[in-house]
Amino acid sequence: MSIRLGALVERLGGQLMGDPDTEVFGIAPLDDANASHITFLSNPKLRTQASHTQAAAIILSASNSAVIGPEYRGARIVTDNPYAYFARAAQWFAAENMHPPVPGIDATAHVDASATIAATAVVGPHVTIEADAEVAEHAVIEAGCFIGRGAKIGAGTHFFARVTFHAGCEIGQRGIIHSGAVIGTDGFGFANENGAWIKIPQTGRVLIGDDVDIGANTCVDRGALADTIIEDGVKLDNQIQIGHNCHIGAHTAMAGCVGVAGSAKIGKYCTFGGAAMVLGHLTIADNVHVSSGSMVSRSILEAGQYTGFYPLAKNADWEKSAAIVRNLTSMREKIRSLEKSVQLLTKSLTDKNKE
Amino acid sequence: MSIRLGALVERLGGQLMGDPDTEVFGIAPLDDANASHITFLSNPKLRTQASHTQAAAIILSASNSAVIGPEYRGARIVTDNPYAYFARAAQWFAAENMHPPVPGIDATAHVDASATIAATAVVGPHVTIEADAEVAEHAVIEAGCFIGRGAKIGAGTHFFARVTFHAGCEIGQRGIIHSGAVIGTDGFGFANENGAWIKIPQTGRVLIGDDVDIGANTCVDRGALADTIIEDGVKLDNQIQIGHNCHIGAHTAMAGCVGVAGSAKIGKYCTFGGAAMVLGHLTIADNVHVSSGSMVSRSILEAGQYTGFYPLAKNADWEKSAAIVRNLTSMREKIRSLEKSVQLLTKSLTDKNKE
Amino acid sequence: MSIRLGALVERLGGQLMGDPDTEVFGIAPLDDANASHITFLSNPKLRTQASHTQAAAIILSASNSAVIGPEYRGARIVTDNPYAYFARAAQWFAAENMHPPVPGIDATAHVDASATIAATAVVGPHVTIEADAEVAEHAVIEAGCFIGRGAKIGAGTHFFARVTFHAGCEIGQRGIIHSGAVIGTDGFGFANENGAWIKIPQTGRVLIGDDVDIGANTCVDRGALADTIIEDGVKLDNQIQIGHNCHIGAHTAMAGCVGVAGSAKIGKYCTFGGAAMVLGHLTIADNVHVSSGSMVSRSILEAGQYTGFYPLAKNADWEKSAAIVRNLTSMREKIRSLEKSVQLLTKSLTDKNKE
Repeated sequence: MSIRLGALVERLGGQLMGDPDTEVFGIAPLDDANASHITFLSNPKLRTQASHTQAAAIILSASNSAVIGPEYRGARIVTDNPYAYFARAAQWFAAENMHPPVPGIDATAHVDASATIAATAVVGPHVTIEADAEVAEHAVIEAGCFIGRGAKIGAGTHFFARVTFHAGCEIGQRGIIHSGAVIGTDGFGFANENGAWIKIPQTGRVLIGDDVDIGANTCVDRGALADTIIEDGVKLDNQIQIGHNCHIGAHTAMAGCVGVAGSAKIGKYCTFGGAAMVLGHLTIADNVHVSSGSMVSRSILEAGQYTGFYPLAKNADWEKSAAIVRNLTSMREKIRSLEKSVQLLTKSLTDKNKE
Repeated sequence: MSIRLGALVERLGGQLMGDPDTEVFGIAPLDDANASHITFLSNPKLRTQASHTQAAAIILSASNSAVIGPEYRGARIVTDNPYAYFARAAQWFAAENMHPPVPGIDATAHVDASATIAATAVVGPHVTIEADAEVAEHAVIEAGCFIGRGAKIGAGTHFFARVTFHAGCEIGQRGIIHSGAVIGTDGFGFANENGAWIKIPQTGRVLIGDDVDIGANTCVDRGALADTIIEDGVKLDNQIQIGHNCHIGAHTAMAGCVGVAGSAKIGKYCTFGGAAMVLGHLTIADNVHVSSGSMVSRSILEAGQYTGFYPLAKNADWEKSAAIVRNLTSMREKIRSLEKSVQLLTKSLTDKNKE
Repeated sequence: MSIRLGALVERLGGQLMGDPDTEVFGIAPLDDANASHITFLSNPKLRTQASHTQAAAIILSASNSAVIGPEYRGARIVTDNPYAYFARAAQWFAAENMHPPVPGIDATAHVDASATIAATAVVGPHVTIEADAEVAEHAVIEAGCFIGRGAKIGAGTHFFARVTFHAGCEIGQRGIIHSGAVIGTDGFGFANENGAWIKIPQTGRVLIGDDVDIGANTCVDRGALADTIIEDGVKLDNQIQIGHNCHIGAHTAMAGCVGVAGSAKIGKYCTFGGAAMVLGHLTIADNVHVSSGSMVSRSILEAGQYTGFYPLAKNADWEKSAAIVRNLTSMREKIRSLEKSVQLLTKSLTDKNKE
């Protein structure tokens, strides 16, 4: 399957410098590309590499186009955001190369008679769909998924194999949920009575907006009384845990292994590095960026980047620094004691000088 | 569905102040409740909010009842532990509102002829139950679960969709295992030979007591030679990893993303905050509480709260403090050197004063 | 089922001291073993315990055999690596005790007509295998697994129940993938455009070598354009996340809850303790060992052990040390200021002495 450069700019915009009839058959990185590929330059450090790419065409910014070496003789598509352009071009190639699933309900699926499955939807083998659930047009529910009673799946949303989407939960349009994810499991709510735990039923839902991606084996708990909310455009990676009653603002992205405890309210356009953790009942403002491996133990009300992890060292060096960290209060005492001694000495010497 | 206040106190105890024929139709938080709801007050900070709730009835302690504002004119149920009372009332409402699953084995389930399934048990679609497994009365095994050879599921225990419960493992009565959990997978045991790893077969089981809850996508490894033990009343949240041969004492609770390495022995009535980690072969006493994000790298033999995570800061501030942490030994040297200099100065000045 | 000691040394090597016709019926630890068991001694600290074991036979090294107490009267198998010998003997017992799965495709499995399933392979209930996939001789695919289009499963590889193995991915011979693992899910790749995220299709594969074990609920992302590579003999525990385009060298082992961000290149013979985290685009040399709970935030080019986690303390002590860590720059300032004062004092006193 090939795409003409002229067709690309017609659909995706950008300024083409080169022959619109040139055909490209796929996308490749600068150093792997050959004459059948289109490539892209977004990292300025790779300009030299870009000058020597063998690609038939390159997507790049005007400023990079101005300074790229004369060795490069292929076509150019000049655009403000080459990385986003690359993403859209790659989506086009991927769509052309995919095997479109055939609409319909597999014979092995177990679909309750009261569920509503759109005619263009795909329901794969061994899927279970309970009473009153709704699967909208062009949605794809792959093999082994479970959709609980009354759940709603929006148009064009795609569940990979073995997703669990519990009763009453809802997801909007064009979403993606990856394999093993569990949406709408019970939140972790118990009352303690004489040391034993009494379960608090979790009767809220998970409500997910449009264009939300949820990674493999990620869990999102249903609310206790109210709902857990994930706004439009949120992107969650794999192995993430979102507690009950959380609210995650639009276009916030979280990398793998992040954990968010219950009732945290997270703003829009935030990012969380891998394995960052957020305690419960906190508020995090818009545009907050938390580094990987950092524990957010208090609310963050100001945009910016926040970090908190112990720096890595050779084990022997860590042993020493950790021993001092354990005794920082004694170090502080020593400094205070030194300050007093120096004050006394200074006074004593000043007095002496006055003699 | 409604419950009379008189019926509530008859079943759950507490002292009713108000009309026993008042009917409530659900539970809601103080600020969301209206005249159809019962609500509860357990956090003393919310007393003012409680004075203004629109609920028909409120569950609260005698001390809070004495000081709640006169604006509140609804009924009261006075009890020693309002939060536990709320949990039990909420369980009642939830039971009334649920769609009771119909006993029996779904036609699409694959159940070995030698397995024993109680007449009142529920086995959902696409479930696999292997030879000699036992599912007791009123147990519910939802869609897509796998129960291995000889495993035993106690009375009233509920597996949500897509649980894996491996061969030979056992769980007691009234347990809950959430979707995606894997119980009885092989522990991580290998012998090293010239750099390569030789698998040590994991032939122990996982033995789980009564009233245990296990969260979504949580894993509990089977023992290597002996068994992994989880005692009565333990509550595990989502995304937790429990290594082989661990022993977790009764009524201990662990929040999401906790990891416990192999052969750790954890006491009763402990709590672990999210993403806390416990190294292997450690012993942790009863009533130990580990804060979120803390690494337990040695045994804890004394009850109490323990913490260990790097404090969060603006990234620029963290960069500075982390640089110093990396060089704490040089800071300690400077302090020692200062102490020596000050000693010398003091001596020198004293000598001078003696002149 | 029993094994003669003579048969053991015939197959596994080692020097037998004792009657080759002695039969052992299983393996047990030193203190649990009775006259029907064989046991092993690899930890020198357990020599005294070994002297008193009731086992019929013991696997041990020549040096330990020389010093073991005279109380022990059973047979001995002397070998260079008793732990590896134990692993192999345990494998033999486990193989004898297992219920061999019956080759063939379960009637409830959904296997595309174009897939190739070897005659000796096992395909369990509710499995889905898509077009053009290949399952080699003696492979076992347990209940509820999903194998995507064109995926290849090598000879003797075993998938436990509910594994997801996505389209185009490949695994070699004698591998094990545990329940809930997801191989070949999309990597986390997005281009940002005005705050919103545009998905970058993930079109690479996951290519896995021979003798690789992957734990329960572990995820390995497919590559973005190139492939994610896991070399021979790698062992991954449960709940691990491996990002797209990672390359993990042969015989590297990772304990539970480890996370590796995208494009990390990890050497051979490395080990990672539980919940260690590796940032993306890093390089880690061969024979690097990372302690549990440590964040690897830069490349490691030299073999050795590396650590970085905040030491655990009683919460009250941690509160104090954490407060100081937050203010380490002010502590450093105080030390600098003290150094200046001491210099001035020293100079002043020296001047005075010169007077």
